[in-house]
Parts: sequence; structure tokens; C-alpha cells
Amino acid sequence: MVHPRVLQAMGTPLVGHLDPVFLSIMDDIQAALRWLFRTRNALTIPISGTGSAAMETAIVNLIEPGDSVMVGINGVFGTRLASMVERCGGHAIRLEVPWGQPLNPEHIEHHLRTTGPIKAVAIVHAETSTGTHQPLEHIGQLCRQHKALYIVDTVTSLGGMDVNVDAWHIDACYSAAQKCLSCPPGISPITFSDTAVDIIRHRTSPSTSWYLDCSLIADYWSESKRTYHHTAPISMAYALRESLRLIQEEGLDVRIARHQRNSRALMAGLQTLGFEPFPTADYQLTTLLCVKLPSFIDDLKIRKALLQDFHIEIGGGLGPLAGKVWRIGLMGESSREEHILALLSALEQLLARIFHHRSIGTAVAAAMATWSQSKNSYA
Amino acid sequence: MVHPRVLQAMGTPLVGHLDPVFLSIMDDIQAALRWLFRTRNALTIPISGTGSAAMETAIVNLIEPGDSVMVGINGVFGTRLASMVERCGGHAIRLEVPWGQPLNPEHIEHHLRTTGPIKAVAIVHAETSTGTHQPLEHIGQLCRQHKALYIVDTVTSLGGMDVNVDAWHIDACYSAAQKCLSCPPGISPITFSDTAVDIIRHRTSPSTSWYLDCSLIADYWSESKRTYHHTAPISMAYALRESLRLIQEEGLDVRIARHQRNSRALMAGLQTLGFEPFPTADYQLTTLLCVKLPSFIDDLKIRKALLQDFHIEIGGGLGPLAGKVWRIGLMGESSREEHILALLSALEQLLARIFHHRSIGTAVAAAMATWSQSKNSYA
Repeated sequence: MVHPRVLQAMGTPLVGHLDPVFLSIMDDIQAALRWLFRTRNALTIPISGTGSAAMETAIVNLIEPGDSVMVGINGVFGTRLASMVERCGGHAIRLEVPWGQPLNPEHIEHHLRTTGPIKAVAIVHAETSTGTHQPLEHIGQLCRQHKALYIVDTVTSLGGMDVNVDAWHIDACYSAAQKCLSCPPGISPITFSDTAVDIIRHRTSPSTSWYLDCSLIADYWSESKRTYHHTAPISMAYALRESLRLIQEEGLDVRIARHQRNSRALMAGLQTLGFEPFPTADYQLTTLLCVKLPSFIDDLKIRKALLQDFHIEIGGGLGPLAGKVWRIGLMGESSREEHILALLSALEQLLARIFHHRSIGTAVAAAMATWSQSKNSYA
Repeated sequence: MVHPRVLQAMGTPLVGHLDPVFLSIMDDIQAALRWLFRTRNALTIPISGTGSAAMETAIVNLIEPGDSVMVGINGVFGTRLASMVERCGGHAIRLEVPWGQPLNPEHIEHHLRTTGPIKAVAIVHAETSTGTHQPLEHIGQLCRQHKALYIVDTVTSLGGMDVNVDAWHIDACYSAAQKCLSCPPGISPITFSDTAVDIIRHRTSPSTSWYLDCSLIADYWSESKRTYHHTAPISMAYALRESLRLIQEEGLDVRIARHQRNSRALMAGLQTLGFEPFPTADYQLTTLLCVKLPSFIDDLKIRKALLQDFHIEIGGGLGPLAGKVWRIGLMGESSREEHILALLSALEQLLARIFHHRSIGTAVAAAMATWSQSKNSYA
């Protein structure tokens, strides 16, 4: 879901990418992104592409041929990171744990101690493919101790969960517009620490990507230079600025609490229908619920009916989880009580119609009970 | 300039990138792009980034480490192509001619005969930095004879000048949205011949870019697969479809003739004010006029006044042409009589105000005379 103010911003007439009006929009975006990432990093900008372009930006700028990168893999997006490391000539050390479990910091520390020099550790904060939350802070301390760069994917967390780039010693942190920022896809925030920028500026070989080369892009975003690199996606920048304004108006802590409250309510409702959380206890995301399907549910049939009859889109399982789980986004504008009530009611109706499920009303009641337990639930 | 219908399309509420509604929009876009590129190529899609991302897509998919690519260089964008070839491990053979001149096919043929195996020839159809038009057809025949792939940049020509991918034997042809298609920047058309697709599918090493890897992206755009790769920029696709519809409604030949007529009129007006075309005679673009400044004109002062007082943005010279030329876009919606009249009148006023130029009205009159010479000028 995208707020109407953001849609309206998308339709604003265009100005040039070096127009003074646009330069001031760029300043606004940078200031708001620093606030959102909780960082003072100078190189904090949106990348001209979707989330995977921002992921590739982190890798192709920091990694040179021969560099070793430890990549945490517990879902689709860790695998994607490892592929990007290898494509630009790096060596990916895959630290795999079963899907649905977080990485163990002791395991990471062991590798940092015993494996040869590791240039960077790359992990995913919120695995969109499994709904798993990876705690970040401890790993950041380990990276700092072992002088490894710390690269973190916050595609499904930034703007919905706490992301604290400076306090957690993150060197490269990227996200996407269409998740918790509730902006249309096509522009993606990234921030690099000063240490990371120094490494980018002193590479021995140019990045494999010209389009994503931050040593060049930084000069366009530098207030004192504004050197043309590529044409920025103007309308997407309008939309991103408006999305960031909405987050600032709500307040980041209030927004994070809303995601927590709503995810608990939805999970309570789903459990009454026979769904169970897929990730290990205590590691469930609040922005995306990944739930195991009860055996009586036909994955495609119900998801198709939800989309066609109720206009509700739910993600299916990716890779080995296909047909076994659902991934229900509760991000930004989508994390609203009315959407949760609509989904639970629709599911109850479909289960009654197709499987003669008898407990109509129980799921909605469970969600409502959860909300009323949390203070300010109807604030 | 962007048509109001395109701005309105940008503000349409979002659907998912695998929603049946979006899949049908993808089909519309592919059909329209094939019509626009004059091709039957199956792999004809928009890339999720601005024009330079499409340029990088052509290179990183077709070129492997060690491949030699002959790159025609007569401006900024040829240089950019060569840099991309080298960044992905290719060897760029730079065929340089002075800025403002087109490449000579005999020169290219000589190199194709005498230099070792050349995998591809990459040239720019419409050099945005110099306003120079590169004839394409003959070079396509040479590439076919010498079994070299033919990569062509049509960023500033597609939708405003004739681009005939199949007849001219082009293997990879890319463009951008914000030039002659009059769509906001952020999505960029590309088409690959079946020969090119075969080469992409049988690479010995994966492309250096995951985000732009067409062996993966093709499966998302394949009607029978629709495999998720990255989230498409939904709103940009809405806008691109609407831009393409507008071009279809106008008719491609009518649109190309409009660009010819209007560029002639603007040039006639500018010449009365002392500007002269920068490119060699017979090689001027109709979509972007690059003109040498008369000695009495202060580049920055006049461009700033045009922007501030009249809201008209004109490009300055890039690289060695900084301060010496202006680049005036006449692309798509911007190639309209009213914009040309506004620019010429504004220039006449500024020249009168700042330099006490006395010939107010002559430039506008020259443009009007040119239009009335062309049949259907006010159609």
C-alpha cells in the first residue's frame, strides 16, 4: 500500500536532475535518510534501481577481485548476496544455517578468528523469504574487533523495525522503497560509513559496475560538486521524499511500535486458524509474517481466491518453502488494523466456503483481543 | 516535458509485480517496444534503471573477460561504453574521431579486417554530448559480414528518429525513457537479437552484474515462466506504457517528421542570433541541437536567466565542450512549436536586455518561415 500523498507526488511535473529545485529535494532526502538509518554518514543516498540494485551497490563498491566475504545464508537473499560477491571476483564464504533460524554470533566469531583475512561480513537483517529476524548489534562488535567491514541488508526492516547504523557499527546498509517505506519500487536507500567510503575511494581496480560506482555517484550527491553521473529517477525521488515525510510525521518509534502491535495481532488470529510461525521463536519479523500452512489448506487455491475475490495479495514460499509457507507483508501503510481484519475475515470466509471450517469469527476475535491488551491500541 | 496522461499514470495505485494485471501491462509494453524498435526480437524489455543501466545491461550480458569490443568514440557516451567494457573484463578498442563528426564505416571495416577477433562493435546513434547523428545501416552490414555483434545506443533517438533494429542487423539496442519517449527517467528499453540471446545463455562465466543479468531477467518476462528476479518498478512501467500509447496514437513516421520539422525551425532561428551547428553538416540530430555559442554570449549567465526567468532548461557543453556549446533538447513532448517560439523569444529578450542586441523578432520570424515552407506545418 502506498499513501495517496506519495501517489500524488509521483504525478508531479518533472524538473531536470541538476535543477536547483531538484537539488534541494536531494538535500531533503539525504537528511531524512540519515535520520531513518540513525547515522551521520555523509554518503547516504538513494540508488537509481530497486532493492537488488542497492544490494549490488554495496557489494560491487566494497569488494575487489580476491577479497573474502563471509555471507550469512538462511534464505533467498543471503544466497543472492553470495552470488553478487562471486560475480565481481570476490570469494564468498557461505555461513549456512537452516532457513528460519538466525545466524549465531559465536559461529561468526569462530570463522573470523580461524579463517584467513575476511574483508567483510554480509548479513540480512530481515529475511523476506523466511520472515526471520537477525539481531545485528553483537555481530557489528565482532566485525569491528576483527577489522571486517559490516554489510547489512535492511530491505524488509528499514522504516518498520529499529535500524541503528552508527551504534551497531554498520559500514554499508541498504534497503528498498517498496517495503516499510511504502514508496513505489524503483529507488533504494543506501548508506556507507566513512571507513567504507575511504575503501571505495582507494580501490586498486574500478568497480565492475559503472552505473552503481559510488566513487562517481558521490560527486553528484556532494553539495559542493553536483557532477553529472547518470540521470536520477526524478519522480521516484519525489515519491521517496514524500514517503520519508510521512514517516517523520508519524515518528519512527511510534511506527516501529505499530508494526510490533499489528504483527502480534495478526499472528494471534492466524494461529486460531491453524497457522504456525515458521521462524524459530523470538526471531519473528514484525514486518513480514512467515507462517506454515495447516495441512488442509491448498496454497495456490486460497491465495488465488484471496487475490481475485478480496484483492489481498499474499506471498507464497520461495525455493524449498514453495507450497509450505505464506509470507504476509505488514509493512508501512500495509501494517494497519483494517488490513489485518480484512485478511482474517476473508480467510475465515474462504475456509468456511471451501473446507467447511466452522469457527467463523475466532480469528478476528483473537486479533482484537491482542490489540486491546496493548496500551494505546486504538491510538 | 511529460504528457499529463503519463503523469497521471505514475499516480496509479500499485499492484504486485506478479499480479495478473501487471503481467498484462508487461505484455503491452513488450509489444509496443517491438513496434518502436522495429524488431521481432523476443527479448525486448524495459530495464529497471535509467539509460546508463540499459547501456551497462548490453555490455555486461554480451561481454566476457578477454573479449575485444570496438567502441566508436566521438563524445561522452562512447567513452562511457568503453569504460563499461573494461570494467567487466573486456578489451575496449577505442575508435576515436573528433567530437561532432560521425564514425567512418571504412575506418571500422579496416579494423574489422586487420585487428584480431572482435566480438562486438558498440556505437552511439545520437551522441547527446555533441548532437551528432551516426548513420547505422552500413556498419550493421559490416558487423554481419565480420561476425561481430552490433551494439547500438539509441538513448536520444528512439521515438524521435528512425531506429530499425532488424533491418539494420542490430544485436543489442537500448534507450532511455526520459528522452524521445517523454516518460520520466527510471526505466529503459532494451532489445537483444536471438543471436545475442544465444550468446547470453551460453556464457562461460556469469555476468558481472546480478541485477542486470538478462539470462535471469528473461525468465521474468517470459510469458510461460514469470520467475521472480527483482521487483519491477511498477509505477515506471505504468508511465512507460502510457508514453508508448501516446507514440502509437501519433504514429511513428508522423512523430519522426515532427522532430525533423521542428529542429530545422529552431536551427533557423538560432542562426539569426549568431549560433552555428556544432556537428559536421548533414550529421545534425533532430532530437537535440548542439550549437556553438557566439563569442558575445556568457554561457552560464544566459542559461541561468533562461531557467530562472523563463523556466527553460538548456544543457551546457560536457567535458571539452563546456562553455563552448549549448545542447537544446527537442525530444518527444518537448519538440513542439510553442516551446521553440518560447525559447527563441526568451533568447531575443535576454540578448536585448543584457547585450543590447537589436534584432528582436528575427529569430522567431526565421523559425516561422521554416515551418511554413514545410507542408502540413500547422497540422
